[in-house]
Amino acid sequence: MSNPIRYVTKVDLNKPGDEQPQVHNRWHPDVPFTETIKQGETVKIECLDWTGNQIVNSDDADDIKNVDLSRIHYLSGPFNIEGAKPGDVLVVEIKDVQPLDRQPWGYCGIFHKTNGGGFLDKFYPEAAKAIFDLEGIHATSRHIPNVKFTGLIHPGIMGTAPSAEVLAEWTAREGKLVAAEQHAHDTAVANLPLSVNAHGGSATGDLAEKIATEGARTIPGRPEHGGNCDIKNLSRGSKCYFPIYVDGAKLSVGDLHFSQGDGEISFCGAIEMPGVLTINCKVIPGGMEKLSLKSPMFIPGDVPNQYGPSRYLTFEGFSVDEEGEQKFLCATTAYRQACIRAIEYLRRFGYNDYQIYLFLSTAPVEGHIAGIVDVPNACTTLGIPIDIFEFDIRPEAEPVKIDQGNCAFVKGTDHPVTYDFKDFIK
Amino acid sequence: MSNPIRYVTKVDLNKPGDEQPQVHNRWHPDVPFTETIKQGETVKIECLDWTGNQIVNSDDADDIKNVDLSRIHYLSGPFNIEGAKPGDVLVVEIKDVQPLDRQPWGYCGIFHKTNGGGFLDKFYPEAAKAIFDLEGIHATSRHIPNVKFTGLIHPGIMGTAPSAEVLAEWTAREGKLVAAEQHAHDTAVANLPLSVNAHGGSATGDLAEKIATEGARTIPGRPEHGGNCDIKNLSRGSKCYFPIYVDGAKLSVGDLHFSQGDGEISFCGAIEMPGVLTINCKVIPGGMEKLSLKSPMFIPGDVPNQYGPSRYLTFEGFSVDEEGEQKFLCATTAYRQACIRAIEYLRRFGYNDYQIYLFLSTAPVEGHIAGIVDVPNACTTLGIPIDIFEFDIRPEAEPVKIDQGNCAFVKGTDHPVTYDFKDFIK
Amino acid sequence: MSNPIRYVTKVDLNKPGDEQPQVHNRWHPDVPFTETIKQGETVKIECLDWTGNQIVNSDDADDIKNVDLSRIHYLSGPFNIEGAKPGDVLVVEIKDVQPLDRQPWGYCGIFHKTNGGGFLDKFYPEAAKAIFDLEGIHATSRHIPNVKFTGLIHPGIMGTAPSAEVLAEWTAREGKLVAAEQHAHDTAVANLPLSVNAHGGSATGDLAEKIATEGARTIPGRPEHGGNCDIKNLSRGSKCYFPIYVDGAKLSVGDLHFSQGDGEISFCGAIEMPGVLTINCKVIPGGMEKLSLKSPMFIPGDVPNQYGPSRYLTFEGFSVDEEGEQKFLCATTAYRQACIRAIEYLRRFGYNDYQIYLFLSTAPVEGHIAGIVDVPNACTTLGIPIDIFEFDIRPEAEPVKIDQGNCAFVKGTDHPVTYDFKDFIK
Amino acid sequence: MSNPIRYVTKVDLNKPGDEQPQVHNRWHPDVPFTETIKQGETVKIECLDWTGNQIVNSDDADDIKNVDLSRIHYLSGPFNIEGAKPGDVLVVEIKDVQPLDRQPWGYCGIFHKTNGGGFLDKFYPEAAKAIFDLEGIHATSRHIPNVKFTGLIHPGIMGTAPSAEVLAEWTAREGKLVAAEQHAHDTAVANLPLSVNAHGGSATGDLAEKIATEGARTIPGRPEHGGNCDIKNLSRGSKCYFPIYVDGAKLSVGDLHFSQGDGEISFCGAIEMPGVLTINCKVIPGGMEKLSLKSPMFIPGDVPNQYGPSRYLTFEGFSVDEEGEQKFLCATTAYRQACIRAIEYLRRFGYNDYQIYLFLSTAPVEGHIAGIVDVPNACTTLGIPIDIFEFDIRPEAEPVKIDQGNCAFVKGTDHPVTYDFKDFIK
Repeated sequence: MSNPIRYVTKVDLNKPGDEQPQVHNRWHPDVPFTETIKQGETVKIECLDWTGNQIVNSDDADDIKNVDLSRIHYLSGPFNIEGAKPGDVLVVEIKDVQPLDRQPWGYCGIFHKTNGGGFLDKFYPEAAKAIFDLEGIHATSRHIPNVKFTGLIHPGIMGTAPSAEVLAEWTAREGKLVAAEQHAHDTAVANLPLSVNAHGGSATGDLAEKIATEGARTIPGRPEHGGNCDIKNLSRGSKCYFPIYVDGAKLSVGDLHFSQGDGEISFCGAIEMPGVLTINCKVIPGGMEKLSLKSPMFIPGDVPNQYGPSRYLTFEGFSVDEEGEQKFLCATTAYRQACIRAIEYLRRFGYNDYQIYLFLSTAPVEGHIAGIVDVPNACTTLGIPIDIFEFDIRPEAEPVKIDQGNCAFVKGTDHPVTYDFKDFIK
Repeated sequence: MSNPIRYVTKVDLNKPGDEQPQVHNRWHPDVPFTETIKQGETVKIECLDWTGNQIVNSDDADDIKNVDLSRIHYLSGPFNIEGAKPGDVLVVEIKDVQPLDRQPWGYCGIFHKTNGGGFLDKFYPEAAKAIFDLEGIHATSRHIPNVKFTGLIHPGIMGTAPSAEVLAEWTAREGKLVAAEQHAHDTAVANLPLSVNAHGGSATGDLAEKIATEGARTIPGRPEHGGNCDIKNLSRGSKCYFPIYVDGAKLSVGDLHFSQGDGEISFCGAIEMPGVLTINCKVIPGGMEKLSLKSPMFIPGDVPNQYGPSRYLTFEGFSVDEEGEQKFLCATTAYRQACIRAIEYLRRFGYNDYQIYLFLSTAPVEGHIAGIVDVPNACTTLGIPIDIFEFDIRPEAEPVKIDQGNCAFVKGTDHPVTYDFKDFIK
Repeated sequence: MSNPIRYVTKVDLNKPGDEQPQVHNRWHPDVPFTETIKQGETVKIECLDWTGNQIVNSDDADDIKNVDLSRIHYLSGPFNIEGAKPGDVLVVEIKDVQPLDRQPWGYCGIFHKTNGGGFLDKFYPEAAKAIFDLEGIHATSRHIPNVKFTGLIHPGIMGTAPSAEVLAEWTAREGKLVAAEQHAHDTAVANLPLSVNAHGGSATGDLAEKIATEGARTIPGRPEHGGNCDIKNLSRGSKCYFPIYVDGAKLSVGDLHFSQGDGEISFCGAIEMPGVLTINCKVIPGGMEKLSLKSPMFIPGDVPNQYGPSRYLTFEGFSVDEEGEQKFLCATTAYRQACIRAIEYLRRFGYNDYQIYLFLSTAPVEGHIAGIVDVPNACTTLGIPIDIFEFDIRPEAEPVKIDQGNCAFVKGTDHPVTYDFKDFIK
Repeated sequence: MSNPIRYVTKVDLNKPGDEQPQVHNRWHPDVPFTETIKQGETVKIECLDWTGNQIVNSDDADDIKNVDLSRIHYLSGPFNIEGAKPGDVLVVEIKDVQPLDRQPWGYCGIFHKTNGGGFLDKFYPEAAKAIFDLEGIHATSRHIPNVKFTGLIHPGIMGTAPSAEVLAEWTAREGKLVAAEQHAHDTAVANLPLSVNAHGGSATGDLAEKIATEGARTIPGRPEHGGNCDIKNLSRGSKCYFPIYVDGAKLSVGDLHFSQGDGEISFCGAIEMPGVLTINCKVIPGGMEKLSLKSPMFIPGDVPNQYGPSRYLTFEGFSVDEEGEQKFLCATTAYRQACIRAIEYLRRFGYNDYQIYLFLSTAPVEGHIAGIVDVPNACTTLGIPIDIFEFDIRPEAEPVKIDQGNCAFVKGTDHPVTYDFKDFIK
């Protein structure tokens, strides 16, 4: 009675992800099941970090610069949820998420603009990295000293498999975007199916090739099934509701984050880590129609880190971009501006822009939509917990300039670490 | 010792706003001061509702349909903060916000698409209204029955006056937007200076005309000074930091909200009310440079309503629009989708779409940026407090269809109250 | 429609309590109703401060020393709740509590050991006082500088009238205690009925005399009806359930507190003030039996001040008293010890013991039962919010000795302001 | 770099505690160190359950009835904290507490009145037990169905070793209590040193005998060093400050609780379990004098379970006992009364008194001191989280009588499971 909880996936931290058949890196209805999970059964699932062991614990960012993004994300599963049918809703309760005892560290990377980029790649095009030590609930980094925070630990990716129809829809609509807009951008606007380095789990031969050819990339979250939502509040104790499109639901999970700020702005922006998830699955028969469920919804857990509502220094961002150009109700621009305001402010304490960019990606910062109807300006806010710093960051406090060291850069490089944002008024 | 706190503004609820010289409705450096406030002095400021008494407590929405938007927003002030100089930072502590004892009700309106519109006007073009009774900390509405919530009460607008240069910049950049994009929209993309119904406070003659001609509209928040930010968390106990551009700072406040959801989606989207603000002002000399402050920032108060982190039913929205078109990292689209998902879900309990639209505007719903880098999809979340409903809205609960009455519409109209959103997969 | 909320009691701050017939200061079934309140009706009730205007805003404690305790507490009511019958349960929703605009200050007093005393009167026998300025949600005191906190505002007293039987029971059981234990104490162990200065509201003649002779003192809370519970969390938004013993329930309220720490340790220990309560009353017929309700219960509101769980410096107290004597599972002793530990600690920052005693009484400190079964030691905790101080009180911070001024003492006195508690180990 | 965190203690779940030299069950300055921990080093410590494997996962309470209390509590350590000296303060940061993967269950016991007893043993003298399944952050019990809660996981015991002087003081003062009061009680008022089954860790021969003869029992917490405080909020992320009396501090820890209500009322009252603690230790030289530290203090962590302030059904208890006898300001009596009120109320939902007693011991209920100066009544409150039940426990909800099964009792017994508390008014 009360045996240890069953592991349905174990991973190997010393082998590339594509040599491990219990993980896969494309969304496709035909990726073979790895295990069956009973309804009401609580199970444990180990996950690789999203890159499948490509990043090391070091003081340079060469691994980040050279990361092979055709390989991401390595997900555990898919799992066959006993009795699940298309049209049902899958209820997943996240009982726990933990780093692995055998690797008590994680990382955050700023990807080079030509290989992944990020929310602020226009200003910070170079690769950078910060390693975080994970001790119990706390993360600290030798690359961003004098700050310690509690992880709001969560899976960045969780989703059911698309049906063939859903998959076709994804490819079509993202293809349309690429056709229409790629020419105007210097980074990818979307990632269409890519067979190179596709990993269909235990699939072999024709099936593996089919998955590689058709399989959707795991990079974006998508409305039909969730996927790479990077919702930091999908943490311990959350209850999630997913539409089901194929028999057995084919749930996949991965991209575990020890901590992440709203936006996950540096793209590889959370504290990325391998880890173990404890979940319990149930099914609501016919739930999609019953609940009018077209996209996942969830109820967060009851143990988030709690800093007190009045312990957030909060920056405002509006949809006027860094060149002073007025955008129309663009919350994305507004949030980028809030991030820039935070960077300018936090420099007072001796950090450089890359460190702050990594910090905003990983720390439990709160990004809110404030007003989204007051033409032409959307307003968003970015709240930074005051109490995770070892010094007082409030405006009234005198800033003691501290030697804050540096984050990891590519070996042998020498490039600016600060960007000079213009004043609104010249 | 400890006399009653000094009122620096009183308002009349029975006279149009433009007959009251202690309020004004345009941003301009030359609007005359109404009062001087000492540094460190706590004062009380009465405010009109944003429309200057145009809306009545009734069961039709004719007043909303015919609202005169050239008149908005009526703001109290501007106030001369003793000793404030350009380049300084104004620190405003919001000690309290309260409705007026003499008018314990407020309203929320959905503006007609041809007269103001809102975040979902494409689907809900008609005018509608809900009246809320305000009893202590609680709001209820006969137009949206069976829900009661605590107000996270706040001023929608607070800002310092622009200098002539800042004002010119606003007009230029918004004008550029209108020139470039207005042709592609069927509602206004921005509101340029409009002399009709401009109210320059106590200004008369040439000065009044100058203000009317040049004065910026109060509709958008703007990065330089805040203004109409509609940040629901700028509530009791908040401490706000504003850049100062003119001597005396010329602080203006208004647009009080008893409660508002993140986004204030129906535009007139909060529980709008006249009320009284208690504030305390200080100045940080040279603060703009010292703090690298280009836009306002703030620290929220310590008495927000608290529903418990696990008491939010949370909807996910992605940047694929309601026609199934893929947008590129558009958080605005993503948030609109999250709102639509919430509308579809809440119909289960007998409300029609207009009621839910009004509800999402006014209730303390949380709108977060989740992931904003996973091309091409931004992901946002919309969290609804479970405990403000008198019935159980959780997915597991059986929905008891209740007669939920109706909100107020324009007299004599008959139009659909539901919009049929397509499935992602046809 | 939506008229201003009806006031059922107004009070006069310039007349002694006993000249105001709309208040009373004894519990008795026959105190005449002042007003009738309909079920479901929201009303406003003004209250005197508990002493009925005996205390003034000054820098001495002479008024505290000479306070006439035979007169307390002046309560508003009793109110006739339409339709309430014995055996029913009265549900009171506290919609709001506010100080009066016309008196924006309150006070906290340490009573002289010979006239009221308090939790630590053995060590601090002298009278003292602190005046607090109330500005919106915040309290500050010139007598305890450099601390500012948000009020968790609440009525110290709320209760239904006892029946004749309940009243008799009270007198009997408290009389028994006096008979058995008074000889061993140098302060009162209970306060039996006292006709001098009894105030039966509008009662006159024989009825007034009957109330004076039989009426229970309002000092203690009592299990049957609540009364003077001094529960700081019975604040805005709370829903309270009271047993009903007489027709109309005869609800009385008063003893408003702007803020109080758990324990209200200095007896006159909260920030005492006149104010106004907004409540809504309903009745559950037959509720006492249905809910097995013998004592009041309640559900707190959703807008308490929130400092973050990790922002409390927490002291432990055990049931070994200040002389080193082991008590048996005495939580009262344990809590006193926790208070003493806090006093010893806070001296580091320049406050004297009387100031800290006043501080612990009024600030929103949390007093918890921790372990109450580990013979012979009960363990309690006392948590102090770190963020209400203007300096850092954490152990790691270097204490800057600040001139903290002084609280108000009796004019012309000169007495120790510190008590030298022994070490546990001599 | 970043190796797995070092384990300084491992335990065996299949061997009695006294066969494991890395644990001990008495407080004594001479218990030999098990390991040395560097300042600033983070380590992991496994702990036995407090009884040293005496309790099994079964459906009877025979093990509870026959538990050998001479053996408790088995603590891991003592640890030598490098550089710690008497007079210093030991700062322990609790980085994490977890159950062991290899035993995902815990238990709560009501001890028989003749063998341990508990807070309510007068009414519930029989032995009982509930087994809890631990899945991630959640606990559920087949013996108390339809309730699920998140553990506020913590060590019940943490303390530094007493010096010889401190130890002598303990024995003297507890001996005095026994001498004075034991005759008036039918359960132990204190537990004096007891050599039988004493376990001095790796001590042998004379040293073992010395420890057995002189060693203080671990049952009570004590003001000088903490020990068995059972403070539920000493959970993940807490920072604790301990006085140091001996070289190396000799820190011991154990008695891990997955969850506990304030008071831990059934004595074996938490969800008891073996588990693993992750801690980090530092020393403040001369800290005892610097901080005036006579008893431990702490700052709680930032990840407690959070149910929302308005989601607690709260019972009031006064110092009038269950026979109607008036006690003088006795918070212990008052808290017992609050517990009784909660028991009477929760019966509505089909649980028997023993189940509720176990529930109140283990669930995260909040026990507060409310008023402690209003002679003769202390008032305490007991708050129960509404949201941990699968049904609605609020007074307005109709109670659906559910078959709630039963807790585990001693095999073959048949005794009442309900106690008939008298009304206050006969």
